[in-house]
Amino acid sequence: MQTSPGPNLQAGVIIIGNEILSGRTQDVNLSFLGRKLNSLGIQLAEGRIIPDVEPVIVETINTFRQNYTYVFTTGGIGPTHDDITTKAVGKAFNREVKLHDGAMARLNRRYEDHDLTEARIKMAHIPENAELIDNPVSDAPGFSIDNVFVLAGVPEIMRAMFDNIAPRLRTGKPIVSQTVRCYLGEGVIAAGLEAIQTAHPSIDIGSYPYWQKTYAGSSVVARGVDEEELAVVVQKIAKLIRDFGQEPIFEPKD
Amino acid sequence: MQTSPGPNLQAGVIIIGNEILSGRTQDVNLSFLGRKLNSLGIQLAEGRIIPDVEPVIVETINTFRQNYTYVFTTGGIGPTHDDITTKAVGKAFNREVKLHDGAMARLNRRYEDHDLTEARIKMAHIPENAELIDNPVSDAPGFSIDNVFVLAGVPEIMRAMFDNIAPRLRTGKPIVSQTVRCYLGEGVIAAGLEAIQTAHPSIDIGSYPYWQKTYAGSSVVARGVDEEELAVVVQKIAKLIRDFGQEPIFEPKD
Repeated sequence: MQTSPGPNLQAGVIIIGNEILSGRTQDVNLSFLGRKLNSLGIQLAEGRIIPDVEPVIVETINTFRQNYTYVFTTGGIGPTHDDITTKAVGKAFNREVKLHDGAMARLNRRYEDHDLTEARIKMAHIPENAELIDNPVSDAPGFSIDNVFVLAGVPEIMRAMFDNIAPRLRTGKPIVSQTVRCYLGEGVIAAGLEAIQTAHPSIDIGSYPYWQKTYAGSSVVARGVDEEELAVVVQKIAKLIRDFGQEPIFEPKD
Repeated sequence: MQTSPGPNLQAGVIIIGNEILSGRTQDVNLSFLGRKLNSLGIQLAEGRIIPDVEPVIVETINTFRQNYTYVFTTGGIGPTHDDITTKAVGKAFNREVKLHDGAMARLNRRYEDHDLTEARIKMAHIPENAELIDNPVSDAPGFSIDNVFVLAGVPEIMRAMFDNIAPRLRTGKPIVSQTVRCYLGEGVIAAGLEAIQTAHPSIDIGSYPYWQKTYAGSSVVARGVDEEELAVVVQKIAKLIRDFGQEPIFEPKD
C-alpha cells in the first residue's frame, strides 16, 4: 500500500543496549536520526533495538550493512565491561581491534596519565583502518568503517558525532513533510485520504488519531521529496476536511 | 560478555509505523512493554521498528513468532489506508481476514449506524480464529493469534490492551533491578565492575555515564531474578564506590 517517499538512499539504525530493552532508558536517538536523515534526503528504513550480546550485534551489523546505504549504531563504546560494540564491529568486518594513535591522542588530551586507566585506554582501541568520529563532549571517539558509523549512546554525544559525519554522507533531496490536523475522526476521512494516496503514490500519507474529552481528531501527515506535489496533496487534504464542514489546521512544515 | 538475566520467556516487540522512522513520533511503547514484561518475568530480547510495508511486516512477524515466546506488535490497526497490520498478520499466518461478529458488536456499541463508515468497519475485520483484545478507549479491538499480540499504536490504548492480555501470559520470576549512582567516572570503576560481573554471571550489570558541569558520574544498574544475589551484587558495587572515597547513591528499586 505505502510507497517509499523518494530517495534510493536508505539507512538502518541499530540501537545497542540492555537498558533500552529493559525500559530503564527511553531511547531518543532513533527519532533524532530519522529527522536528521530525512533532512539529508536519506530515508530511515529500519531500526533494531538489540541487547549487549556479541553474536547478535555482529549478525545485525552484517545484515544491515548489506541492506542499507548507511548504518548507524548507537551505544556500547564506553569503558565498561558491557561496552562490547567496538569488538563486535571488528568481528563483523573481520578486522583486528588495536590501539589507535589518533584515538589515544584524544584521550591524552582529556586525562592526566594517572587517570588513564586500562578501561579508558580500551576506548582508544579501534578496528584497523577505521575513520575516527570526533566526540566534543567526552573525547573518546566513535568511528566508521565503510558504510557503518559507530556512535555513542548518550544522546548529547551521539548528536554531536552525527553532526560531525553528516558532511561525509551522500545526500538526496530533503524529505519534507506537512501535517494537517482536523476535528474529524479518522473513520470519516479515511476513504477520501485513500483516494488522495492512490492519486499521488510518490507522496506518503499517514493518518494518526487523537482524542480529547469531547471529540476525536486526526493528524494527517504528507511526506515526500517533491515539494510541488506535496503542496497539491496538502491542498487536497484540506479540501477533504472542508468538505466535512471543518477547517484544516496546518502545522509548521518540517 | 553479558548474560541474559533469568528466564526462558523471551519477547520481541515490533513497532510498525512510518511516523516512528521519520522521527515525527517518539515511540514510547517499547520502554513501557520492556518494563511491564520484566515485571512478569519475561525478558524483552529485541525490538524492531519497521515501516508500513506489507512484506516487511509479514516477514518480521514470521521471524519473531519463531524466535520468541511472545510477540507484540504496535500500530497499524486503525481505519485508514496506511493501517495494514491486520492484513499483514493474516498473511503471515495464512488466514483469511473476515468480518468478526464480536469486533463488529464493539463498533456498534460506539458508533451510530450512519457513522459506521466502511473504513470503520475495516477495524472489525480480523484474521480467522483470532482472539480479540478489548480496547477501552476507542472500542476497536486488537487481537492475538498463537503467540502474537496485535496492539494499537496510540500509547494510551496500547497500555490498556496490554493490561487486558497480561493475565493470559505465562510468567516467570520478576526481573528486578537496582541502580546505584556515584560521582566517579566509568573509567575509574570499570575494572571493579567487570570483576563483580564475572563473579555473578546471573546478574546483568550495566553502567551508564552522565556528566554535569564539574564532574562525571556513573549509574550502575544490576538486574536479575534472584533478589538475594542481586542484593549481594549491589553491596559489592557500593563497596567498590566507597573504596574510591565516594558514597553510593541508591535509587529506588524497580
